[in-house]
Amino acid sequence: MATEERPDVGQNARQIRASVLHGAKDLRIETRSLFPPGPTDLQIAVRATGLCGSDLHYYRHYRNGDIIVHEPMSLGHESAGIVVDVGSEVKNFKVGDKVALEVGLPCEQCDRCKEGRYNICKGMNFRSSAKAFPHAQGTLQDRINHPAAWCHKLPDDVSLELGALLEPLGVAIQASKRAQLPAGSIVLVFGAGAVGLLVAAMAKISGAGTVIIADIDAGRVNFAVENKFAHRGFIVPLKRGNTIEENLEIAKETAAEIGKISKVSGGPVGEVDAVFECTGVPSCVQASIYVTRNGGKVLLIGMGTPIQTLPISAAALREVDIMGVFRYANTYPTGVEVVSKKGPDYPDFSKLVTHRYKGLESAEEAFDMAGKTKDDKGNLVIKVVLETGEEKANL
Amino acid sequence: MATEERPDVGQNARQIRASVLHGAKDLRIETRSLFPPGPTDLQIAVRATGLCGSDLHYYRHYRNGDIIVHEPMSLGHESAGIVVDVGSEVKNFKVGDKVALEVGLPCEQCDRCKEGRYNICKGMNFRSSAKAFPHAQGTLQDRINHPAAWCHKLPDDVSLELGALLEPLGVAIQASKRAQLPAGSIVLVFGAGAVGLLVAAMAKISGAGTVIIADIDAGRVNFAVENKFAHRGFIVPLKRGNTIEENLEIAKETAAEIGKISKVSGGPVGEVDAVFECTGVPSCVQASIYVTRNGGKVLLIGMGTPIQTLPISAAALREVDIMGVFRYANTYPTGVEVVSKKGPDYPDFSKLVTHRYKGLESAEEAFDMAGKTKDDKGNLVIKVVLETGEEKANL
Amino acid sequence: MATEERPDVGQNARQIRASVLHGAKDLRIETRSLFPPGPTDLQIAVRATGLCGSDLHYYRHYRNGDIIVHEPMSLGHESAGIVVDVGSEVKNFKVGDKVALEVGLPCEQCDRCKEGRYNICKGMNFRSSAKAFPHAQGTLQDRINHPAAWCHKLPDDVSLELGALLEPLGVAIQASKRAQLPAGSIVLVFGAGAVGLLVAAMAKISGAGTVIIADIDAGRVNFAVENKFAHRGFIVPLKRGNTIEENLEIAKETAAEIGKISKVSGGPVGEVDAVFECTGVPSCVQASIYVTRNGGKVLLIGMGTPIQTLPISAAALREVDIMGVFRYANTYPTGVEVVSKKGPDYPDFSKLVTHRYKGLESAEEAFDMAGKTKDDKGNLVIKVVLETGEEKANL
Amino acid sequence: MATEERPDVGQNARQIRASVLHGAKDLRIETRSLFPPGPTDLQIAVRATGLCGSDLHYYRHYRNGDIIVHEPMSLGHESAGIVVDVGSEVKNFKVGDKVALEVGLPCEQCDRCKEGRYNICKGMNFRSSAKAFPHAQGTLQDRINHPAAWCHKLPDDVSLELGALLEPLGVAIQASKRAQLPAGSIVLVFGAGAVGLLVAAMAKISGAGTVIIADIDAGRVNFAVENKFAHRGFIVPLKRGNTIEENLEIAKETAAEIGKISKVSGGPVGEVDAVFECTGVPSCVQASIYVTRNGGKVLLIGMGTPIQTLPISAAALREVDIMGVFRYANTYPTGVEVVSKKGPDYPDFSKLVTHRYKGLESAEEAFDMAGKTKDDKGNLVIKVVLETGEEKANL
Repeated sequence: MATEERPDVGQNARQIRASVLHGAKDLRIETRSLFPPGPTDLQIAVRATGLCGSDLHYYRHYRNGDIIVHEPMSLGHESAGIVVDVGSEVKNFKVGDKVALEVGLPCEQCDRCKEGRYNICKGMNFRSSAKAFPHAQGTLQDRINHPAAWCHKLPDDVSLELGALLEPLGVAIQASKRAQLPAGSIVLVFGAGAVGLLVAAMAKISGAGTVIIADIDAGRVNFAVENKFAHRGFIVPLKRGNTIEENLEIAKETAAEIGKISKVSGGPVGEVDAVFECTGVPSCVQASIYVTRNGGKVLLIGMGTPIQTLPISAAALREVDIMGVFRYANTYPTGVEVVSKKGPDYPDFSKLVTHRYKGLESAEEAFDMAGKTKDDKGNLVIKVVLETGEEKANL
Repeated sequence: MATEERPDVGQNARQIRASVLHGAKDLRIETRSLFPPGPTDLQIAVRATGLCGSDLHYYRHYRNGDIIVHEPMSLGHESAGIVVDVGSEVKNFKVGDKVALEVGLPCEQCDRCKEGRYNICKGMNFRSSAKAFPHAQGTLQDRINHPAAWCHKLPDDVSLELGALLEPLGVAIQASKRAQLPAGSIVLVFGAGAVGLLVAAMAKISGAGTVIIADIDAGRVNFAVENKFAHRGFIVPLKRGNTIEENLEIAKETAAEIGKISKVSGGPVGEVDAVFECTGVPSCVQASIYVTRNGGKVLLIGMGTPIQTLPISAAALREVDIMGVFRYANTYPTGVEVVSKKGPDYPDFSKLVTHRYKGLESAEEAFDMAGKTKDDKGNLVIKVVLETGEEKANL
Repeated sequence: MATEERPDVGQNARQIRASVLHGAKDLRIETRSLFPPGPTDLQIAVRATGLCGSDLHYYRHYRNGDIIVHEPMSLGHESAGIVVDVGSEVKNFKVGDKVALEVGLPCEQCDRCKEGRYNICKGMNFRSSAKAFPHAQGTLQDRINHPAAWCHKLPDDVSLELGALLEPLGVAIQASKRAQLPAGSIVLVFGAGAVGLLVAAMAKISGAGTVIIADIDAGRVNFAVENKFAHRGFIVPLKRGNTIEENLEIAKETAAEIGKISKVSGGPVGEVDAVFECTGVPSCVQASIYVTRNGGKVLLIGMGTPIQTLPISAAALREVDIMGVFRYANTYPTGVEVVSKKGPDYPDFSKLVTHRYKGLESAEEAFDMAGKTKDDKGNLVIKVVLETGEEKANL
Repeated sequence: MATEERPDVGQNARQIRASVLHGAKDLRIETRSLFPPGPTDLQIAVRATGLCGSDLHYYRHYRNGDIIVHEPMSLGHESAGIVVDVGSEVKNFKVGDKVALEVGLPCEQCDRCKEGRYNICKGMNFRSSAKAFPHAQGTLQDRINHPAAWCHKLPDDVSLELGALLEPLGVAIQASKRAQLPAGSIVLVFGAGAVGLLVAAMAKISGAGTVIIADIDAGRVNFAVENKFAHRGFIVPLKRGNTIEENLEIAKETAAEIGKISKVSGGPVGEVDAVFECTGVPSCVQASIYVTRNGGKVLLIGMGTPIQTLPISAAALREVDIMGVFRYANTYPTGVEVVSKKGPDYPDFSKLVTHRYKGLESAEEAFDMAGKTKDDKGNLVIKVVLETGEEKANL
């Protein structure tokens, strides 16, 4: 991304518009200079950007947990667009190509990068994250320059909107790869938000025998099952004790209830082989540990309470492994395959985009919607996409 | 199976009929004494037995490769039936239960057994195999006693015929577990016989992005694609050179042709991540090595030519691993899940049984059909099932 | 172990003595009838039994955490002895053989057993544990009958005392197998008790580049390094905050201090690839999470505080996996290899047995010593072994 | 390496000397221009280069198997040296640092690179290999520019000669990582050349219970055992049949003989868990398959006969996996740890360098020696190192 400041190409810079966050809820449309793409970069007209929870945190608080914004920053990192210019050394791409952006640029030199786990590279530079400084600017801009090596061509029949969805789908694929579940496994997903739904879909596509999705909201659970993201649903009762002991008891009860529906086939009820925890809520993490069979896995995907009180022996003494999932590495090619498919039993990924807004000017409105669980008409809010870009192209 | 000879229960023995092989093509119906089940055994009325290639070898030659039959032996090991008697210590089963039989009884004491790879136990006692002596008798009998621990209950809506299919499906699941392919992988299956079709189906169910099935017979390839066992088909040209060099050149050409169709999505053509070789034919194994991408896998499933001339450097220098698949371990619970499912895009497993015969007396006729690739009407012969058993039950 | 009650062999029973726990600190020498070994059993004169923390809990409280003793029970499960009688069907063993006992008998029928993870079998029957009822009696008896399949022959030059040590060593091997660390890894072990020392030794033997052992007791740390169990030692400062935040801050500081010594070679300081946590103390588990590199592993081995407050995001967001280790599966053959070796740089396993007592009558005295960290002379108490058995044999 | 031709820094080029191959056995000392290091490069005075079998092939035939040299090329890729200049953006290195060179530069963009298996990157540019064009020049030059990301700092107490050894040691570490053997394994290594010895050493260091090294030369076998590279040795009888059947029978006999010595401890003889095949000779590969236990692994490391006739069923039907090992990925940090250690039972890596030559002018003489198995005095030739460089430094 250093090309954006390259002085030697300054004379060729063009003016673009960007939506830039200057403070909590202070989004401004600004004009920026964008230089031609560097030799190994593409210039991309951003066309669709999904709004993510971390973007929402920045928008609302000008920070995300411990990470504070230090300079005006464009948001957006779930994006796809159209190639409008091609660096001199780039092969395999041409103007007009549809691409999804993999917006995290790792250092490519540390041990993690060299072993292929670039998602946990300490030097990661991730668009619309304020962790590195200067911040890597997000995709809510007319155009950006991005290394061709981190752009992924989309087939003709995959929409740019689905292309944008490849970013959160990457998290689901990462979870699936980390879990390494054999076909026929019984899987529980806690949380039926966008990530939980994608995670459930990936488990189902990967051959899980039974995928149960659990959420406190019956509407989300129904949505998941109706649209083929999961085989079964479970509505988590809203119950809370006064002590950790009471809460653990409640978690155990929840686990026991879920255990009763854990098999789709007419055969005997099985045990949960793996839980994909997508809420980050302690009561769900606790129930995840209890519900998992001996030797099973709990995958922590949801970013929630950073310090939690957990029944750790209930995991360790049964060799239930607790594995983190952070972003993704090497998931985009798989993601393209996954969203390319369609079928009567196949998860309908396009349904995940429940709300669309047009133009950078609508960013504020879009973020407000992204912060809701239901819109004014009572429809679920799952994924809000901002459609941008002056070029003509079929979204 | 020692219970069959227990003298202390002799007075309670009942007479059953068995189809027994006494020599090449010399099948006889005989009467045997069957004692009540031992304390941990079930007595099962066999209802459906699929005929396998190894059975056919024994039937035709009274041997299977190097393994020679030393005493009259019942054939059959792909079986399901109805529980008709329950040993005194058995829980979880009752008379009337439908069960699939896992007919290989490992020693349960060696290192392989203790680590869960009982399929490669040296002390394995496998029904209708003449490897151990006395031979473990096959399932082409009215009833057999079998350890409850190696019986697998079938849900109501799974037919006994599908139950019998769990045995070859076990091989496919074993192959899938050994391959550990992430979702989105590109998979090639050589051979569209029963095992090849099941292997392709398991790869598809496990989330492979593209499953290509290759066979010399266009009818089988079409069958596979039409019935959702694979995404794509490839008809292997019948071409053979005079020298190993010429044959390797032909294998390379075949590999190159397959490489051209290796992606279902509209995206760029990918490389084959893994080949499941189900023919055992050297030219196919050779092509398997060539077509696999750097770092991919060739799974050897087909039992074929025992000594082969292979381009071994073409594998080793690219870290293409050549992995064997022998029978199965711990696959039946998954298999039950797999055949329990149905759907418009789901492989139609019931289509695999192309020919059915009734009664032990039809064994000879059934074996003759199992030896053909097409029947007199030109229909494919994939799996021949012998339906047996005096009890009334819904097959 | 059912043979102990077999009525049909009652006339052949012999009288043996057993040390039996009847209540907290109420150990009594009793006479029991022991029948000849069943067909697949060995009869073993127990010669050496190491005392374990769980035995000590039973001895002191007549319970172990939540597990309450329901009938008089012999303690002891780290044992070796001499074969004195051989069941009729047993091969490979003869009277006079030295054997180590693997005292946990799994169900051998559940999914976990069949996949080779019998250590987490729900039906496990483990000697000197009150979890199952009737309780499986421990080894503090003159003789016991035990299945030959769970006896492991010892080479001539391995003492029975080392044979007894194979049980806790099994935990260390299990930890090593679960961690799957490549050679050259940097490993931290929290806790320099018997298990911690064995775990450190296994990491070192398995090729870890640097093994650091950390304990609050300088004497134990020095012992570990001097006797080649670890490359380096770290004395954990005794520091405790008033709030969880303060404690986490202290854990972070500890982690940072350890990080400074993490490489043996003269090269740059590395990061800790894996922590083997053998204390079960929350502050150590917390520091374990902080000190582990991105993508590393924390193995929970110490049985400690069952419910803990942990910086779970600090693990999940860096894909630091938290893996339990419970007992062991398939470790004895490796253990025999490990204790068979000797050398100037090799861990001196015989040094772990710091205190020996003779005869069942000394059990009380031995337990009192096992409860101490140092004896009256100020020597470390690491492993206390009770030597028993009337037969002549070289310990 | 593109910096060598950068025109913009041409005025700063310095003259260096290089040993350049112009044809079979046609080595010439030439003067080349070397520009200052690029921003992310180091300039290194090469001090020690081990001669490898592939170098020797190029030297003798101006080709290596199918790979033909297309332009004059410097040989040498097992190298270490001293940093003499540091690119403007490089951190962590300074003039005077001792470094080992990882001479293969992968594309860093393909799927294999991104997943951390850069050793099988199709776009690999490897010094002293004629596979890519223009050829990446080898290290038999006074100085070279090399990306800092592929240089590995050596601790003070590791000699440059050991630094050069990190390259073939990388192959051994790669083999060890691919094999993933638990501690206590029984390992056989075919071939006691430099790579075989390093492979044996890595297996031993990684905790193998027994490492047997097999070679036709008793001297090499003794060398291996005496210098602690292996526990045991086996002298392979020189026997050859007239047909493949006879040869397989001989291979089986060899396997049987080796099986008899497979355990170091006084316990029962075990089975070989893995074979590391470092000869590439068909009879050894055949014996490797036969000697490996059910479910074990054969690692193909030796580059030998490209097309081989193998008892493939003997592998497949026992799930003996045949895995290739090609060069290495991410092994240098481990290698530095490994050669940093010393001890009475530790393999003495310095003994591997049996012959040293000084100066680029001695290259011819050095290659002649590298082509022998014993020198004129009857001493083994294992690794020949060419010491070069005008700078003063302690080798």
